[in-house]
Amino acid sequence: MASDLDETDRFLPRFDSSGLITAVVSDARDNAILMVAHMNAEALRLTQETGVAHFWSRSRQALWKKGETSGETLQVTEILTDCDQDVLLLKAIPQGKGAACHTGRRSCFYRRVEKGGLVFIDETRLFDPKQVY
Amino acid sequence: MASDLDETDRFLPRFDSSGLITAVVSDARDNAILMVAHMNAEALRLTQETGVAHFWSRSRQALWKKGETSGETLQVTEILTDCDQDVLLLKAIPQGKGAACHTGRRSCFYRRVEKGGLVFIDETRLFDPKQVY
Repeated sequence: MASDLDETDRFLPRFDSSGLITAVVSDARDNAILMVAHMNAEALRLTQETGVAHFWSRSRQALWKKGETSGETLQVTEILTDCDQDVLLLKAIPQGKGAACHTGRRSCFYRRVEKGGLVFIDETRLFDPKQVY
Repeated sequence: MASDLDETDRFLPRFDSSGLITAVVSDARDNAILMVAHMNAEALRLTQETGVAHFWSRSRQALWKKGETSGETLQVTEILTDCDQDVLLLKAIPQGKGAACHTGRRSCFYRRVEKGGLVFIDETRLFDPKQVY
């Protein structure tokens, strides 16, 4: 299962057939996972150049500077890649009110899967999405 | 940007056109991100039923009980989903030697992206992949 991508020090991000790579964002302060999005090469370049997270919005089919509307930008402190270089991990310090999720919550992962359905584990809204979008 | 998927307590995982959903695995003890893989509906069902992480291997096109060969299984303590239900977050306690990555490292994210290339931030091998695979 070993491959050249595992042990190289060359950055060779594997964009998929749509030109995208999965990007996981965690809070640099406590490792909490905040969101998962996608980047094309331009979003990655802009993130590296500006230190502010940029993604590719699959729903809008457009470059997306995270927080451009809401002010909830992500200051990227570190980018890691995984063994086969098809995922990026962005460690970031959330700016604004600290809500990475468009619902106003800190993290997009605010529901736990249980047998009967989903249980909300975070109902704290750091902003009101109706007033922002 | 709000959708019914954001606020429902119904679990409606959005598998993609290949029948897969992205699964991020973090260590339940300290939130460190260990790996990112994919699940089909059967892998998800087996994970929920057994408490041991199962995935779909895209390279082998086969159901994959993580750790079946290496012993490095993942005991899942919690499954979360994100706002649009197209990503799962598995919180897990690594078993075996605690190496989630097939290279023998704790995490698949052992390299940092820098301007000149990749910098290895974890060279500790918890097992020797040549002896395991």
